[in-house]
Amino acid sequence: MDRYSALRRTARDVGADAVALVPGPNFERLYNTSFHSLERPLVVIVPVENAPAAVVPNLEMRSFDALGFEGKVFDWRDQDGYASAFAALAKQTPLGTLAVEGQVMRVFVHHALKTAYPGLQIVDAEREISALRRVKSPQEIATLECAIRASEQALAEVLEQVRTGQTEAEVESLLTQALFRNGAQEHAFGPIVAAGDNSAKPHAHARTDYALRDGDTLLFDFGARVDGLNADITRTVFVGHATDEARSVYEVVLAANLKGHEITRPGVTAHDVDDACTAVLEASPWSDWIRTKTGHGLGRAVHEAPQIMRGNHEILEPGMVFTIEPGLYGDGAFGIRIEDDVLVTETGCRSLTTFPKELTVVGQC
Amino acid sequence: MDRYSALRRTARDVGADAVALVPGPNFERLYNTSFHSLERPLVVIVPVENAPAAVVPNLEMRSFDALGFEGKVFDWRDQDGYASAFAALAKQTPLGTLAVEGQVMRVFVHHALKTAYPGLQIVDAEREISALRRVKSPQEIATLECAIRASEQALAEVLEQVRTGQTEAEVESLLTQALFRNGAQEHAFGPIVAAGDNSAKPHAHARTDYALRDGDTLLFDFGARVDGLNADITRTVFVGHATDEARSVYEVVLAANLKGHEITRPGVTAHDVDDACTAVLEASPWSDWIRTKTGHGLGRAVHEAPQIMRGNHEILEPGMVFTIEPGLYGDGAFGIRIEDDVLVTETGCRSLTTFPKELTVVGQC
Repeated sequence: MDRYSALRRTARDVGADAVALVPGPNFERLYNTSFHSLERPLVVIVPVENAPAAVVPNLEMRSFDALGFEGKVFDWRDQDGYASAFAALAKQTPLGTLAVEGQVMRVFVHHALKTAYPGLQIVDAEREISALRRVKSPQEIATLECAIRASEQALAEVLEQVRTGQTEAEVESLLTQALFRNGAQEHAFGPIVAAGDNSAKPHAHARTDYALRDGDTLLFDFGARVDGLNADITRTVFVGHATDEARSVYEVVLAANLKGHEITRPGVTAHDVDDACTAVLEASPWSDWIRTKTGHGLGRAVHEAPQIMRGNHEILEPGMVFTIEPGLYGDGAFGIRIEDDVLVTETGCRSLTTFPKELTVVGQC
Repeated sequence: MDRYSALRRTARDVGADAVALVPGPNFERLYNTSFHSLERPLVVIVPVENAPAAVVPNLEMRSFDALGFEGKVFDWRDQDGYASAFAALAKQTPLGTLAVEGQVMRVFVHHALKTAYPGLQIVDAEREISALRRVKSPQEIATLECAIRASEQALAEVLEQVRTGQTEAEVESLLTQALFRNGAQEHAFGPIVAAGDNSAKPHAHARTDYALRDGDTLLFDFGARVDGLNADITRTVFVGHATDEARSVYEVVLAANLKGHEITRPGVTAHDVDDACTAVLEASPWSDWIRTKTGHGLGRAVHEAPQIMRGNHEILEPGMVFTIEPGLYGDGAFGIRIEDDVLVTETGCRSLTTFPKELTVVGQC
């Protein structure tokens, strides 16, 4: 069994002659290293049978050689462009149908392939290819826990520093500094630090012109990336004090979050988890504040399979990791989200996130 | 003149009925804000005439509304998928040919468009669309200088901390902490910290198992991202001492770098700059250590137009910003690169990077 067995099987399953991988999470899992992608195409072709082949920018060749690549490599230099490398690939490895990662491959690579292979059928097999990442290895789980610990330590430090009068952007800067002080190698994604009405936007940007006020919600959604694995955590706290309405909304969201932990176990579906969590929100007086599904798989990509969403009848298996992040969002008022990263175990689930979820008031001097 | 004039003209120039923008540098320049993209398609269609239209994930609607968007928006929810939003777009805005950003748009959006518009011609107009970003606004230049100052301050702090025995990964962590302490909002790209033979790889990864030794080269290639603008700086220093050969190679690379500054002015071409710098390297005893072109445009993307490369006869104009980063890379030995970010002015150029370039030895206690 070579390291391409699963990919070859996937190609066959989707009726393709080969799978194409470009730098990104699947590539990183396979080769345990990453490449800067940018404007230079780098593609690995893994046929159903036979050796793989690759198109590689010449300036990456030293790094690429370190992969112990098993097949023919067509390298190209900036001065010459990449068309002839793709043409040489097409001559050496004829293909009728090619399965690609539609969420990762960009259109210029698609066009380069179509030019080199006139008549090539390009199939978006993102789901099938990325499915190979759904069950995490013990090593991946250990690394993810590292990323989560770094994130939680950073949040703990920042909550000590928050005061009314600080802008969202100032708090975000404190968070970022704390993340990298605690071992983050990169942000998993641009962090969200949003107060008051801004916290009602699921993907808000920190404002430089809004200062925290007493009674504001303050939502943190962020994560450290460590050795290619991403944490993704949300906590919503209160500045100075929490209004009665906000407390009530918080309790509903927390109940939905806890429900998610309660029902997650092998054999249950992604639909079941979303359905159970969302039902808690729907039964509350704030059912029209629902904006999002319950969660998403988490690992080398911040959003990956399984999507924790009604209608997704994927069955949960031990080793899957996903977020449970119910939220309620009152347009123009405030939003609350509580997000944990959970690992499906043999008998249930284990929360990799351990940061406290009790309603917390910060900024009281 | 509306904010879409230049894009409409670009669509017409490439023979398309419209330009499609997805979240990325062109989108950010136009709307002065960014969106998390990930697995949810968000596309703006700007026709040659008539109002724009967009497909937007429902959970982004509050943020999208803040753009003051002028046309019809087709939003979609995770539960329903995006196919019907694209179908509604196609009904409302018929298109025969569409110009896209080939380096930014991913294949799944391409496929969604092809499904909604059977027979649609999709043209990769990355170059033409991104050309609208080539000349920077005074605001963009000011922000870029902020990002560069943060990067330089971080490097200064790290060079004080470097000692033999530290691993590349430890030095990278020090650099990252210093970057975010000094105002970086994100890494412009995964930083490169590479010593000894690893510095001979243009895009090396920091090793956890290699400790700095006396006599090593130590190459830093990194940058802060601030408000959407990216710094990109390389300096190569020596640990403990520099060998005679390394000193000689350093002087050649520095001479090539200075040559780039010397000849950069309006009216000169990108080809001319690369040619002049590369000629300096070629005239040295290390001409077979050349691996890369001289540089690339820099701004909202880390690599953008103009590519500073032989054969690119683009004429330099005031307001363009690009890197001058000649290097020499001895496989298995060491590599040296010195990279500045320069702004083309009315009469010549101004180096936005001001970090010293004299040969520097660090780690001497």
